[in-house]
Amino acid sequence: MQKSPLQIARGNYNPKMPVALQGSVAIQEGALTQSVADQDEIKQLFPNTYGLPVISLVPGDAQPFPAVNVGVILSGGQAPGGHNVIAGLFDGLKKINPESKLYGFLNGPSGLIENKYTELTADIIDEYRNTGGFDIIGSGRTKLEEPWQFDKGIEACKQLNIKAIVIIGGDDSNTNACVLAEYYKQKNAGIQVIGCPKTIDGDLKNAQIETSFGFDTACKVYGELIGNLQRDANSAKKYWHFIRLMGRSASHIALECALQAQPNICIISEEVEAKNLTLNDIVEQIVNVIVARADAGLNFGTILIPEGLIEFIPAMRRLIAELNDLLATNDEFNTLESDDEKRQYVKAKLSHESSQLYRDLPKGIARQLTLDRDPHGNVMVSQIETEKLLIEMVAKRLAIMKGEGTYKGKFSALNHFFGYEGRCAIPSNFDADYCYSLGRTAAMLIAEGKSGYMAIVQNLTKPADEWQAGGIPITMMMNMEKRNGKMKPVIQKALVDLEGEPFKYFAAHRDEWADAHASYIYPGPIQYYGPSEVCDQPTRTLKLEHQA
Amino acid sequence: MQKSPLQIARGNYNPKMPVALQGSVAIQEGALTQSVADQDEIKQLFPNTYGLPVISLVPGDAQPFPAVNVGVILSGGQAPGGHNVIAGLFDGLKKINPESKLYGFLNGPSGLIENKYTELTADIIDEYRNTGGFDIIGSGRTKLEEPWQFDKGIEACKQLNIKAIVIIGGDDSNTNACVLAEYYKQKNAGIQVIGCPKTIDGDLKNAQIETSFGFDTACKVYGELIGNLQRDANSAKKYWHFIRLMGRSASHIALECALQAQPNICIISEEVEAKNLTLNDIVEQIVNVIVARADAGLNFGTILIPEGLIEFIPAMRRLIAELNDLLATNDEFNTLESDDEKRQYVKAKLSHESSQLYRDLPKGIARQLTLDRDPHGNVMVSQIETEKLLIEMVAKRLAIMKGEGTYKGKFSALNHFFGYEGRCAIPSNFDADYCYSLGRTAAMLIAEGKSGYMAIVQNLTKPADEWQAGGIPITMMMNMEKRNGKMKPVIQKALVDLEGEPFKYFAAHRDEWADAHASYIYPGPIQYYGPSEVCDQPTRTLKLEHQA
Repeated sequence: MQKSPLQIARGNYNPKMPVALQGSVAIQEGALTQSVADQDEIKQLFPNTYGLPVISLVPGDAQPFPAVNVGVILSGGQAPGGHNVIAGLFDGLKKINPESKLYGFLNGPSGLIENKYTELTADIIDEYRNTGGFDIIGSGRTKLEEPWQFDKGIEACKQLNIKAIVIIGGDDSNTNACVLAEYYKQKNAGIQVIGCPKTIDGDLKNAQIETSFGFDTACKVYGELIGNLQRDANSAKKYWHFIRLMGRSASHIALECALQAQPNICIISEEVEAKNLTLNDIVEQIVNVIVARADAGLNFGTILIPEGLIEFIPAMRRLIAELNDLLATNDEFNTLESDDEKRQYVKAKLSHESSQLYRDLPKGIARQLTLDRDPHGNVMVSQIETEKLLIEMVAKRLAIMKGEGTYKGKFSALNHFFGYEGRCAIPSNFDADYCYSLGRTAAMLIAEGKSGYMAIVQNLTKPADEWQAGGIPITMMMNMEKRNGKMKPVIQKALVDLEGEPFKYFAAHRDEWADAHASYIYPGPIQYYGPSEVCDQPTRTLKLEHQA
Repeated sequence: MQKSPLQIARGNYNPKMPVALQGSVAIQEGALTQSVADQDEIKQLFPNTYGLPVISLVPGDAQPFPAVNVGVILSGGQAPGGHNVIAGLFDGLKKINPESKLYGFLNGPSGLIENKYTELTADIIDEYRNTGGFDIIGSGRTKLEEPWQFDKGIEACKQLNIKAIVIIGGDDSNTNACVLAEYYKQKNAGIQVIGCPKTIDGDLKNAQIETSFGFDTACKVYGELIGNLQRDANSAKKYWHFIRLMGRSASHIALECALQAQPNICIISEEVEAKNLTLNDIVEQIVNVIVARADAGLNFGTILIPEGLIEFIPAMRRLIAELNDLLATNDEFNTLESDDEKRQYVKAKLSHESSQLYRDLPKGIARQLTLDRDPHGNVMVSQIETEKLLIEMVAKRLAIMKGEGTYKGKFSALNHFFGYEGRCAIPSNFDADYCYSLGRTAAMLIAEGKSGYMAIVQNLTKPADEWQAGGIPITMMMNMEKRNGKMKPVIQKALVDLEGEPFKYFAAHRDEWADAHASYIYPGPIQYYGPSEVCDQPTRTLKLEHQA
């Protein structure tokens, strides 16, 4: 296999670790826990995994542990550092007992159900240390939710004598990990389940989890690109760059990138929803900045747009919901021939407010909402090129203002979408270190017989030496939420907190970033070597959240 | 001005230089030169700047030089390293005589004509060392072609006592630099003109110029992103990534990125033209690879597409030319109301072959060709999203094959365009070093009274110590070409040489890269610190061209 020079060099990197993981490790049990809300329901649903104590790893005399076979699963979208969780897990298990074995279930949770696996040997692990991607065993989006799936898992584990499963995933996957842990305890299956907090979106965080892994690297890749575009904008002086960024459920990525690069505009979906803004309000905000900069002779700039924006605009969400209801199983609609007839049909059937909104949308987007639907008949929201929608609406508004004499600039826009570019980047030192520690921690939790826990590492704004590793009961992070019409126990998803320090910093500075004096910062590419202030810094979000 | 940690760290980087530039420098005149073709015409057009000797810089006793005021111009699209050319020029001029001054003409060649300038002081220069972008003085696309412009330049220079102008630009800008040099010599204006070879596209190279600056950095940025997408494709195992890359006149960027990352498919425009391929041929080539990989269970991959592809497909080029002729000043067409009428009108008027091709194009692209036109009525070729065009045509073909039972895979495609992301990146060590040396070299050529020369640095695959700096007469690279209907003296543009080593290496390996065994390489982000094999390597193109 041919490798780039950096791939080869990164193969030799030794992740930095908390002191507790460097030598012999012992565990310390802390206070018993409660779920963040709905304690009675959660307790009832998780009689065997509820209320367990918080666990800290501390330096201490390691007991001799028996060898153990472990299975690992990568669940959901890729995030930089996944391979290091697995490498840490492997090294941790071998340290505990060299006879331990690690199996990887292939292509996500379906690997467990279908009993598809590979043994992860030292040779394989060494090929993937400090690399990006989930290709070591693949990932997948199958949800582990049904008892028949859990039972299949028992069969697969029995065959390999697997005593513990580590699930590396986001909020939903970790919720399911806990359901699985509970089920296996109830059944006395003899299989522990441990979760690890993964997602570039950054929406799996709370009082215990400071950040999910991958967020750091992905945001730094996007930050590099945004910085480059800003330098280009500032040099060519003729383009507005509309940049859509991954992150459908929350705007953490957009916010972090704004903190890194200080663009002229960044839209935060959570704020749009809180203020009940319309699409026209957003267009107006953008137009105001463009006009003010044009008045100062600056016909260029950068705008960050979170991928999920459309769904956070209350009126758009209602329109989409109405369209889904109207079109999902509408045979009458499906018999209509021309696009025009379909549009007319839709306009007539929507509520007054939604019909009006639909009418005002640019043609291309209206078409996308009406005609491009997924196999269940639903609008494919993630396919909507919100950055192009906004460019079109902004251009229209500016043309009107030009006619009225209130805008005298030139408007040329370029659109970008950054997402896939960051999900499999080579992990930053931060993510490489953090993930390796998570894996080592998971190994210790397994050795200590824990189940229904998530491996965590805290104190992440400090040097890695001072990080604190441990485990928290997954039930601790749960509450009851309505999903597909039914109340379910789930880990609370962390949206951007409009009262939190990262947003407050952004809100306090955005006017300054919008105006004529350049405030652009150029983060540049992730560096793995060189001065520590260049190579080992956590995200701005993490620093602001933990600066106090 | 707030800066990122990397920005601050890069401010302290000292570019590496050829030995000849490290101490006292002398010049050595080599053989007299001839233009690459059309010697008689070129000689006649450039009586004062034709046939000059090649110049080498060598260690030697520097004469004392008088102070000199110099103007510098950034011309055309941004390229990483432009600021270092200026920093090298500044340091070189100050070394020659501390009383020398450097002025920057603002926003490209128009700054000279309009006499808009700024003095570049040490404080300003220090802010921009080793940074990306052209924002120190801005760039622009005004062409210096007319005597009245040249005369305006004389006025501007007189006012500031400027004795030499350095033009940093691509092939056209350097052609114009030579015309300007010739004009000033004829007029005895006392203004020297020196060029510097810039362009990320890599199409300004020849026997003397090994590479234009910026190509290295830009390709490494794209290589990083392509590698990341490949890791994602290889992990998620469900997407074909169609990636369009900047480079309209030549496919050097696509080829270099292919050599760096080894994607499944890379299309080279020059090959398409040489083989007289049709759009359908290209679709068929892509489909063949997709089907073969699907048969091996791999429904994912990466495809690189050069931005200029459309114009290299002979039949498409004819269609576009016909459309331009037909629609530019066609009042009849402009009175037509509906898109449908317009399409029908066009179909009827085109030649049989073009009409057929037009009919077969996906609707969206046909629409773009007919309706979206620039102020001169021409098709806006650079706006055509060729990657989407190919996705649509490939999907259509695969659907047919699925019906016939010859394709059993799943096809999901994602599209990307990378261009602006790389033009203003922080220059790689290579570009930082190379550009700084070019600037220092330009200063020496000025001190020695040269004009009509381009600053060059050769031997670039060796360590910087061993690089050789000098100057070549710009006329040496010229031939006569038809431009806008008139024969003009121009620097030959370097297209991808289908007999050259980079293409031959690619052609010899592409089947292997296309097939089921992953050959992906993951270049990762540009590194500025760390092992030299990671940080200081030139492009693969340069290495292959000079390996013999």
